[in-house]
Amino acid sequence: MIDTFSSAALALCEAGRVLHAQGWVPATSGNFSARVDDQSMAITVSGRHKGRLEADDIMRADFQGRPLTEGKRSSAETLLHAMLYARDPAIGAVLHTHSVNATLLSRGREGELMLEDYELLKAFAGVETHATRLVVPIFANDQDIDRLATKVATYFTQHPPVHGYLIAGHGLYTWGRDIPETLRHIEAFEFLFACELQQARAYPQ
Amino acid sequence: MIDTFSSAALALCEAGRVLHAQGWVPATSGNFSARVDDQSMAITVSGRHKGRLEADDIMRADFQGRPLTEGKRSSAETLLHAMLYARDPAIGAVLHTHSVNATLLSRGREGELMLEDYELLKAFAGVETHATRLVVPIFANDQDIDRLATKVATYFTQHPPVHGYLIAGHGLYTWGRDIPETLRHIEAFEFLFACELQQARAYPQ
Amino acid sequence: MIDTFSSAALALCEAGRVLHAQGWVPATSGNFSARVDDQSMAITVSGRHKGRLEADDIMRADFQGRPLTEGKRSSAETLLHAMLYARDPAIGAVLHTHSVNATLLSRGREGELMLEDYELLKAFAGVETHATRLVVPIFANDQDIDRLATKVATYFTQHPPVHGYLIAGHGLYTWGRDIPETLRHIEAFEFLFACELQQARAYPQ
Amino acid sequence: MIDTFSSAALALCEAGRVLHAQGWVPATSGNFSARVDDQSMAITVSGRHKGRLEADDIMRADFQGRPLTEGKRSSAETLLHAMLYARDPAIGAVLHTHSVNATLLSRGREGELMLEDYELLKAFAGVETHATRLVVPIFANDQDIDRLATKVATYFTQHPPVHGYLIAGHGLYTWGRDIPETLRHIEAFEFLFACELQQARAYPQ
Repeated sequence: MIDTFSSAALALCEAGRVLHAQGWVPATSGNFSARVDDQSMAITVSGRHKGRLEADDIMRADFQGRPLTEGKRSSAETLLHAMLYARDPAIGAVLHTHSVNATLLSRGREGELMLEDYELLKAFAGVETHATRLVVPIFANDQDIDRLATKVATYFTQHPPVHGYLIAGHGLYTWGRDIPETLRHIEAFEFLFACELQQARAYPQ
Repeated sequence: MIDTFSSAALALCEAGRVLHAQGWVPATSGNFSARVDDQSMAITVSGRHKGRLEADDIMRADFQGRPLTEGKRSSAETLLHAMLYARDPAIGAVLHTHSVNATLLSRGREGELMLEDYELLKAFAGVETHATRLVVPIFANDQDIDRLATKVATYFTQHPPVHGYLIAGHGLYTWGRDIPETLRHIEAFEFLFACELQQARAYPQ
Repeated sequence: MIDTFSSAALALCEAGRVLHAQGWVPATSGNFSARVDDQSMAITVSGRHKGRLEADDIMRADFQGRPLTEGKRSSAETLLHAMLYARDPAIGAVLHTHSVNATLLSRGREGELMLEDYELLKAFAGVETHATRLVVPIFANDQDIDRLATKVATYFTQHPPVHGYLIAGHGLYTWGRDIPETLRHIEAFEFLFACELQQARAYPQ
Repeated sequence: MIDTFSSAALALCEAGRVLHAQGWVPATSGNFSARVDDQSMAITVSGRHKGRLEADDIMRADFQGRPLTEGKRSSAETLLHAMLYARDPAIGAVLHTHSVNATLLSRGREGELMLEDYELLKAFAGVETHATRLVVPIFANDQDIDRLATKVATYFTQHPPVHGYLIAGHGLYTWGRDIPETLRHIEAFEFLFACELQQARAYPQ
């Protein structure tokens, strides 16, 4: 178990360096986790800089969001990670990023962002053609994470599966079967966000 | 022959790292090939991340697009590579990239993009002055690659030679006598795409 | 004392490399300092390139802005650093950067930039919720640094504490308890500046 | 003499890597030179990729633009370098870059670009205050380099000294007493070009 935790921790540190180099987790924004077993996850400690993570910046928590590593406190948003692992045993990693584009597309909005007619939609597991409409729900930002987690969970039970969601003015949550797949999803979402925003600029309506 | 294949494979892996660092092959988008001999090419295996290619991610295929490496499947778009080598023995490499700018310039369009009055047009083999009009055909995206390859081939027989083409919402195909020349063409195309898009933004009509 | 100065100097050189790689201190713009003790600071020598700083490019000065290292002259803006250390013993570092976005947001303006409804506001020490309004004062540029320092000091005595300020067409001054916290503030400010500017472009009023 | 040439060549190769990493010399665009003595310069060989220069890609030429290295041909634009060294013995390096922003600001234009009210103007040798107006002449592009060089020289004799000029749709020529100062001028020009263009976008008239 310790070995699984250690290698998950190492992989999260490395993912942080990759994501920070892209500018997607500025300052101490973002938080990352990876499943350790069927009851716990490795998750970033609150307030650390995601581009300079060390093993000591990763802790264990259970799927109710409770810390399993003595003396450490995980992100206020731990519950948003925990609920995903608890709901779906196929999820192996959850990465929350905080890019300029995700902020711009979501700020002051609530509802759904529709992504369609992009070849890159095929980067998402299970999508076989560009003639797809990918829905990205946008939830209002809320410092009450229990309430926000309940809202997200309610959405999940009432809609077809999604690959990620936005919190308004706050950023992206996405997940996958492991860290590499989740990084791939972030790359794809960020590409599509850039297209949506630049489209609006180049061809304003 | 094996030596030629191995060195082509290595060079494709390195090209992938260069292109991914520019953001031009996000997620698992893009596919790359290089001629091995007069009947076969080295080409990226389907679904691999182009910024982290290893020798094992490159396979051989013939110019009908059939795999020559046991147990591996190349990209669905293999035929778009194969037809270029089969048509023109001077072509030594074909690189397909997938940038935000190529997507924005091509999405929802079909026809031709005209590039003119740029000094950088001289980066294309055979162009000696900036007072040139470079035509980049844009084809509608199509998951039926046989049909798309036929459309591209028909265009080629009916028009003067081009240096690359766009698939709508999907990206750029370009080629050259070897990988370095093809990388140079991508740099030049991406520069020109950036100019075209930013021109539209800075000076909207 | 020498040890404290030397390690501060080393850390400033490294901060310069990080900030220059982001494009936030082009040419010889910007200047950096760190507190050495309760009467002096380490500060960059005038006119050096901030992305290629060596130990020799850092000198000592007191909190009246007078040089303590023989034969070296610190930036014309030394007083803007000194006044911060003199006012607040909790300040351990002051970094002045000069990005395109800070220039664009401040040029030809005087007054206050309001940043609100961004999750990233929580990156600033003491901010606990995104439902915060962060005020960034903008001062007119002035080659008379004494006069500018007096203007800044007057603002400070008449307003609640701020985390940074802009000089019109010139850039950002921000500070923190140490260099890492100050770098975090710059990352946060630059993220918010990018959002403000791109928001204006994507959704012009 | 050989030593001077060799170290100039090495420094030009390194400058190329720095400039290419910024995207300012895409494909084979740009050309670079440095003074060797009062009659000759080291200059890039025609058609080489400026981000991957080796010693072999640098040759000697005199100030009439004639090659002094057997078997090599320098850029078609050699005369634009040579005339600067011949006119002004204080010039030690000339760098020609080719950025998207320089292209956008100059394309289809002829005349003068005015840069004013930027603190960064102080990065240019001899400028002591931001309250300066920096003039950047823009010349129409011309494949006849003799004619273009004459036009540039005529401008120089009729106007106060400038720090660089643009060729329409083609890029920037700038110079300095050595390569580091010239690189600093490029950083400053590119910063100012970015400001000018983004200003136009954020606040269209």
